[in-house]
Amino acid sequence: MSSVRPPKGMRDFAPVQMRKRNYIFHTISQIFAAHGLEALETPSMENLSTLTGKYGDEGDQLLYKVINSGDFLKDVSSEELNTRNLKKLAPLICEKGLRYDLTVPFARYVAQNHTSLPIPFKRYQIQPVWRADRPQKGRYREFYQCDADIVGTTSLQCEVEMMEIFFEVFTEFKLIDQISICVNNRKILQAVAEVIGAQEKLVPLTVAIDKLDKMGIEQVKEELNSKGIDSNKLNPLFAMNGTNQEKLKVLSAFLASSETGQLGLRELEYVLRRCEKLGIHSPISLTPTLARGLSYYTGLIYEVKLIDASIGTIASGGRYDNLTELFGVKGLSGIGLSFGADRIYDVLEEKSLFPPHLHTGPDVLALNQGEESLDVLYPLCRELRRAGFKVQLYSDDTKIKKQMKYANTIGHRFVAIVGEDEINQKSVSLKNMGNGDQQLFSMEKIDEIIKFLKMS
Amino acid sequence: MSSVRPPKGMRDFAPVQMRKRNYIFHTISQIFAAHGLEALETPSMENLSTLTGKYGDEGDQLLYKVINSGDFLKDVSSEELNTRNLKKLAPLICEKGLRYDLTVPFARYVAQNHTSLPIPFKRYQIQPVWRADRPQKGRYREFYQCDADIVGTTSLQCEVEMMEIFFEVFTEFKLIDQISICVNNRKILQAVAEVIGAQEKLVPLTVAIDKLDKMGIEQVKEELNSKGIDSNKLNPLFAMNGTNQEKLKVLSAFLASSETGQLGLRELEYVLRRCEKLGIHSPISLTPTLARGLSYYTGLIYEVKLIDASIGTIASGGRYDNLTELFGVKGLSGIGLSFGADRIYDVLEEKSLFPPHLHTGPDVLALNQGEESLDVLYPLCRELRRAGFKVQLYSDDTKIKKQMKYANTIGHRFVAIVGEDEINQKSVSLKNMGNGDQQLFSMEKIDEIIKFLKMS
Repeated sequence: MSSVRPPKGMRDFAPVQMRKRNYIFHTISQIFAAHGLEALETPSMENLSTLTGKYGDEGDQLLYKVINSGDFLKDVSSEELNTRNLKKLAPLICEKGLRYDLTVPFARYVAQNHTSLPIPFKRYQIQPVWRADRPQKGRYREFYQCDADIVGTTSLQCEVEMMEIFFEVFTEFKLIDQISICVNNRKILQAVAEVIGAQEKLVPLTVAIDKLDKMGIEQVKEELNSKGIDSNKLNPLFAMNGTNQEKLKVLSAFLASSETGQLGLRELEYVLRRCEKLGIHSPISLTPTLARGLSYYTGLIYEVKLIDASIGTIASGGRYDNLTELFGVKGLSGIGLSFGADRIYDVLEEKSLFPPHLHTGPDVLALNQGEESLDVLYPLCRELRRAGFKVQLYSDDTKIKKQMKYANTIGHRFVAIVGEDEINQKSVSLKNMGNGDQQLFSMEKIDEIIKFLKMS
Repeated sequence: MSSVRPPKGMRDFAPVQMRKRNYIFHTISQIFAAHGLEALETPSMENLSTLTGKYGDEGDQLLYKVINSGDFLKDVSSEELNTRNLKKLAPLICEKGLRYDLTVPFARYVAQNHTSLPIPFKRYQIQPVWRADRPQKGRYREFYQCDADIVGTTSLQCEVEMMEIFFEVFTEFKLIDQISICVNNRKILQAVAEVIGAQEKLVPLTVAIDKLDKMGIEQVKEELNSKGIDSNKLNPLFAMNGTNQEKLKVLSAFLASSETGQLGLRELEYVLRRCEKLGIHSPISLTPTLARGLSYYTGLIYEVKLIDASIGTIASGGRYDNLTELFGVKGLSGIGLSFGADRIYDVLEEKSLFPPHLHTGPDVLALNQGEESLDVLYPLCRELRRAGFKVQLYSDDTKIKKQMKYANTIGHRFVAIVGEDEINQKSVSLKNMGNGDQQLFSMEKIDEIIKFLKMS
């Protein structure tokens, strides 16, 4: 029996959701493009060898693998088959996997093309990714990522540009007063590990303090202690507050003995000063406990959060130095950011911040009252479409009441009526579905109809 | 070793290709939207039971299947495993498959939601599909389809609308004088089978004449004869020429004894007459040998071809009566069309019909000459972006020559220069990369800069 449902954890997007999603993607991509970033797309599938080993053991488990076409067992001996060793069998019967994020395919693309790419190479990419995760509220097995990256330069102007993009995108979404852009520097975390004598334990340190938001300070300290890190030495970090300038001062003293730390602080200082000059600094909050899970970051890192909601991170990113090294190409430092489209969707919905025009359907429904009305309506619809309006001609010559009901369901703003009276007068009536007002226009003055629709 | 290539038959799309592809998708989707069609998206994966059996045996073989996550062998006994029966094993270890087209997922969506959908339901869908086909020139394993469908009405106004959409899209692409929209009606084919006494052989008849373009008349006649169909009886069909009106007359006589045939002709006549009234009839050519491979069509069918090229079909579609029946929902007649984006891309490229602005990169590259220049350029870039321009600030304070070369590579139209002179004069120079002209503007008159860029 054919299933009528999509697979678990995957979604259909109906027209009303598509309008809102496209608004989000369009807004973000326009701002990317305004900064000279250009679109790139990579295939949905990659060779499995491109993907495995890049996301840790857990990530490898969540990769969707595509079974080879034709005789997928042809390279598997009976012995191998009967071991039922999944880890060994999977790569024998699956050459390809679905992309897990946009970063690794991007790194693969850059490595493949690095001799011919303009450097710095600035690209954005908005495509779905797939993870065989347990589905739950807000977590899906297929979802879109919106990424922007600049590779081939270590210039801090890129860091500033990422802050500009955040500022412009969230200004456009009318969320700019409700967000905090938390920034830190991996070099600072490294210096922290140094000065408390835990330089060998940078990873467990990072992993532990990354959970501060979720677990709270006490549990994080417990975890740190259990890993042999004296958590009390981190108290100045946990206790830090005040302005960014005040925090920089405390950190500078705390990390006085670390060259790496001083470098990290200078980088942060530069970016903050530029942002201040640009007047985009107010949402930026230096957060020395921000760690970011992913291991490939090496410089500035950042996460955008809503101040008043527990919805988590809605955008994030950071600088990495060795991403393409995985594919054999060294020395291409880069920086990236990613917007969480699904979370932004939920926030805009909850706060009623989607622009009102997204709630209405096509502008006009032309009512079908038989052949004579169609003789008038077909050319009218054509003119209105040329003028930029979305116009639907109702397909069937059925009861007007039914057609009006349809207009209400779809959310057409106007209906165009050509009944007997209108035909005799060579005219058309436009009825405003919002307030019920109806107005008669001569068919000879289509300009007036267009003007009227534009004003309404 | 990590692969640095995408999988065989799959493609990366670099920025310059993305601009052109997005132009195609944008043009088509704007015209869909102007007709009141709304966007829909379905997941990349469907349950395998949704997909199998819908595309014939060959199609089933070309489906990409996704191996179950976790223990994919858990439902397979050792006995089953050792049979190596691929057809039986595949559904046991793969619950899901990647979509093969947009039609079946759309039918699944309509069946799932038919009680709540507004009827007629008009949707368009632009998403990739996957086929494990042998890759060759112009045939890929991942490619986009651009579909539009209207379901829930048998009204011929939908057929007219499909012709309008073809007309508008190919007018926009400046191809309207170079295409032929071949139309036919499945009812006519059915009637042809009737009148030549081959009503039991409609499928082999359709399959054979569908190959007319590729194989030529003699080979098609041979195939027909070999299937027990007297091909000479089809001579009036093969010999047909003249205007659409003349063809209708000949067909009407040829199919005089068939009620189905007469109905099919009346439908065609109606659509042709409406298109004539709308002045969009010139590219439409009644082609009684047009068959369309897919078995689900029941009414009007159409294919758009280039007159002077052997590139094949660049758009196509038709009416179907029973598509959602596969998913248990009867009585929803529908009609659809699909644009072949890859072929349209190749045609526009070959004929140099992409708009010139797609060949240039972001509008302005602001040259980085150190901190003082940045103090001027950051706010300038911001103003220009606000005015709608695409502006890149070069990230590194490096040699001007290198930055100019970069502007040429990327295709920036202008560079903005703030050197010592400009700083002293509180001004900025704009250099036109096309003709080398350079002009000085006061930083106090950003309006003039904007005006100048708009005029250039």
